[in-house]
Amino acid sequence: MDVTTLPSWQKLTAHAERARSEHFRDLLERRPERGRTCHLQGAGWTLDWSRQRVSAEVMSDLLALAFDRGISTATEAMFTGQRINTTENRSVLHTALRANAHDSVVVDGVDCVKESQAVLGAMRAFTERVLSGDEVGATGQRFTDVVNIGIGGSDLGPVMVTQALKDLQGGLAPHFISNVDPTDAHEKLRGLNPHTTLVLIASKTFTTTETMANARLVRTWLEAGLPRESNIGAHLVALSTAVDLAEEFGISEDRVFGFWDWVGGRYSVGSAIGLSVMLAVGVSAFEEFLAGMRDMDIHFRTAELANNLPVVMALLGVWNRNFLNIPTRAVLPYEQYLHRLPAYLQQLTMESNGKRVAADGNAVSIETAPVLWGEPGTNGQHSFHQLIHQGTQPVACDIIVFSQSRHDAARQHATLVANALAQAQVMALGRSASELHAAGVAPDLVEHKVMPGNRPCTLLWSKVLTPHSLGALVALYEHATFVEGVIWGINSFDQWGVEYGKEVATRLVPFITGDDRPDSAVPEFTSASIAQLRSLAESD
Amino acid sequence: MDVTTLPSWQKLTAHAERARSEHFRDLLERRPERGRTCHLQGAGWTLDWSRQRVSAEVMSDLLALAFDRGISTATEAMFTGQRINTTENRSVLHTALRANAHDSVVVDGVDCVKESQAVLGAMRAFTERVLSGDEVGATGQRFTDVVNIGIGGSDLGPVMVTQALKDLQGGLAPHFISNVDPTDAHEKLRGLNPHTTLVLIASKTFTTTETMANARLVRTWLEAGLPRESNIGAHLVALSTAVDLAEEFGISEDRVFGFWDWVGGRYSVGSAIGLSVMLAVGVSAFEEFLAGMRDMDIHFRTAELANNLPVVMALLGVWNRNFLNIPTRAVLPYEQYLHRLPAYLQQLTMESNGKRVAADGNAVSIETAPVLWGEPGTNGQHSFHQLIHQGTQPVACDIIVFSQSRHDAARQHATLVANALAQAQVMALGRSASELHAAGVAPDLVEHKVMPGNRPCTLLWSKVLTPHSLGALVALYEHATFVEGVIWGINSFDQWGVEYGKEVATRLVPFITGDDRPDSAVPEFTSASIAQLRSLAESD
Repeated sequence: MDVTTLPSWQKLTAHAERARSEHFRDLLERRPERGRTCHLQGAGWTLDWSRQRVSAEVMSDLLALAFDRGISTATEAMFTGQRINTTENRSVLHTALRANAHDSVVVDGVDCVKESQAVLGAMRAFTERVLSGDEVGATGQRFTDVVNIGIGGSDLGPVMVTQALKDLQGGLAPHFISNVDPTDAHEKLRGLNPHTTLVLIASKTFTTTETMANARLVRTWLEAGLPRESNIGAHLVALSTAVDLAEEFGISEDRVFGFWDWVGGRYSVGSAIGLSVMLAVGVSAFEEFLAGMRDMDIHFRTAELANNLPVVMALLGVWNRNFLNIPTRAVLPYEQYLHRLPAYLQQLTMESNGKRVAADGNAVSIETAPVLWGEPGTNGQHSFHQLIHQGTQPVACDIIVFSQSRHDAARQHATLVANALAQAQVMALGRSASELHAAGVAPDLVEHKVMPGNRPCTLLWSKVLTPHSLGALVALYEHATFVEGVIWGINSFDQWGVEYGKEVATRLVPFITGDDRPDSAVPEFTSASIAQLRSLAESD
Repeated sequence: MDVTTLPSWQKLTAHAERARSEHFRDLLERRPERGRTCHLQGAGWTLDWSRQRVSAEVMSDLLALAFDRGISTATEAMFTGQRINTTENRSVLHTALRANAHDSVVVDGVDCVKESQAVLGAMRAFTERVLSGDEVGATGQRFTDVVNIGIGGSDLGPVMVTQALKDLQGGLAPHFISNVDPTDAHEKLRGLNPHTTLVLIASKTFTTTETMANARLVRTWLEAGLPRESNIGAHLVALSTAVDLAEEFGISEDRVFGFWDWVGGRYSVGSAIGLSVMLAVGVSAFEEFLAGMRDMDIHFRTAELANNLPVVMALLGVWNRNFLNIPTRAVLPYEQYLHRLPAYLQQLTMESNGKRVAADGNAVSIETAPVLWGEPGTNGQHSFHQLIHQGTQPVACDIIVFSQSRHDAARQHATLVANALAQAQVMALGRSASELHAAGVAPDLVEHKVMPGNRPCTLLWSKVLTPHSLGALVALYEHATFVEGVIWGINSFDQWGVEYGKEVATRLVPFITGDDRPDSAVPEFTSASIAQLRSLAESD
């Protein structure tokens, strides 16, 4: 059913007309106690929506929309392993990866929790052997570094999490090669010692172009750097479902850590794809990360809609996107360790919900995922916040704050928090011409200094960044993305839009190398570019 | 004058109605030789707009708009030092930083080129002394590392450029501390040796909160790590206009490298702010970088509008933003070394043109800067390209390609280029239902695989990433940003929107530390957050 035909959607449309013409200040005047009332807690996180352009009535109708759209039923369908990824006929069970060991989710007679626990046990055992020095390289030296070769979901999660938990790294030093650009491997291998480097090849199918190209390149690097006839396999591990292809590459079955078709790439950081994280931060920190995810899973599955963080976060997203027509969403972590969170969330949200057709194949009549972007605060304040405050097009922001720092020094953390709250306040209220006049600003500068405000933002806070709070944060965004997808009526778990470009690229390679000449199937503008690039490459 | 009253703007409005209802494929059918005709060259770069939704007629009227808006006059006004930054009554002369040494631009009797050359000469001499070991630390050891402390324009440029030229680094290893979050300094100082670390404090006014907090923190770190009564000043350098404040901090005048009020922070990478770059890549590479900027400056100042890269790039930006109503722009460098280019361009474009009032203080009637975002290809293809291809909201893309890699290996660079061209092709043409049926795709999946295409992109290419091509690329975006600002009628060189948040933050600090309690001037939602965060910080 088209979501726009629901009575709750239509009521929201009516609210939106008023909301678009009124200012957050009006909302505040009608109900000044927003700070004490508009927030909710779960799994160690607080979501504070007091600065959103959402009245009590709007929130009530948003919750009605969630109800009308059957969020609770959809959630149960996901958690219990129904094949909600309909276009690929798959279950969606990243929650099974971090379920309690005694839980059980059976799909086609297989208990997915048991399977997950078995792989997790193998990862744990392997990590302990590596970190204790029982598992060594071909020349008997202990491993000091781990290189994860993967792209997309096999890269962004491990990168983000190892960066976020950087000060907990007591294990191997992690490195990540993702881009097919040979520069990436060149730079990342520089300074590494093949004798002490463990290499993880992370590809579900073991056929991803970029990953396999880099895997071959790194295997060659190992071969060149180790004595002849060394056991290169002692340096290789596969994170993959394709045991046969991994074996063909020279990786024995006991060094293949598997996952399953019910784990999407962008939801896989809690699976074997997280092995680089475990090797870097240790087994117990990784388990704490999973526990944080699990606590948010339980909160999401059990809290009523009005008190449910992922549900309310999703509803705010829908309100801003579909009713206030705000085309982008900035994620601004006031925590330097989270500097790669926006890139991680770009994949999570835009690959999940950047869709144009409903499950039935009909084009949706509404906007789906906004563009997500961001950089850590306070850095962004000295850059793009100018546009957030005074641009012509509003941006909806998520501001992430921790009440404590992992390293406080000279009370700089208080300045950090003050800046986060100040930005949120100025986004909401702005600064009017009359305030500027009252402050004695030169008349001809007043209009230049006016800030319209009315920029909605959500504050998300937790006590301190730990593996647990990080896990809960990731699961919060995962489930909010799912709920948005259900409301928009799309399948958040396929990604048909990324396939065709790969096919086209494969066909173009021989024309670029000059092994073949573009045929008539190649558009004129592409073959013109190929000719120009080739002639430039060959010029002096 | 309101730009929308210009005849060329009105003609474009009429074109836009047709353009919004027609597909790029129609455009291509009317004029199939786009690849050979829609590109231009300058300063070693090619700008290829054959995949933009721009007909010859539209381009002709866009050029008329540039003419009507007096781009050439405005450009001369900038280059000759007129006070085009009207709200701050300043000249805008970042071009003087890289002018030929024998050129001359006199403002108020001072030759800005001569001033620039003098500082550049001092930077060169200092760098040579440091790299030769004539200039050493307090304990007589050679410097091995340089830490640049700065934020915004005093950080993003040096970070981006040192990353881009990473394989040329033969000088000091560069490190950057920007965020007031104490985590940033903690992580960046880890592993550094105070005896061999040179510290640059980069702040135009020498009062930037974040920078001065980190400067104090790093000075304490030096004091703790060096013998008592060491000459800490031997480790400190200031990049600033405030010689007096730098001296107060313990930096002698001969270690202060200055710049001027006619260099905006986001245009300052070619000034003394680039000292960390020069120390990392050496004098001649830095000079080559300036030469690349200079070549683009000359191209911009001399090429006629139709052959002018910055002008045409700006016109495409205006067309996509104001006529096709595309709210965001993705910059996708197919070159891993450029991974921080999008963050750099976020400041350049969004802080320059994220404005809502014209020079006369009247609100503009049109949209100004779009949100700019991006990550390197091919990485983004495994992430947000799903939304680019199949989302409901089009994104305008800049795809940056080099015909040669700095490190080719096993022809991976050909795969990289093939992917760039394939993405550009699929964005433009999409994939229709009939093509999918013809390819034998299962009928119930056809609509899920349809890609509407009609996503405009510009290809930018050069032979290989060098200091010269990087400099020219930066200047291309600088000048395109300037031209967009002139067309929109805004001042691209002030940033009033970033001030007020700092003031508010300063007032909030004592409430967050608990030294004081929020007064009635603090909005309820802010004081509620402070109370909650404080109680959380103090909880077990």
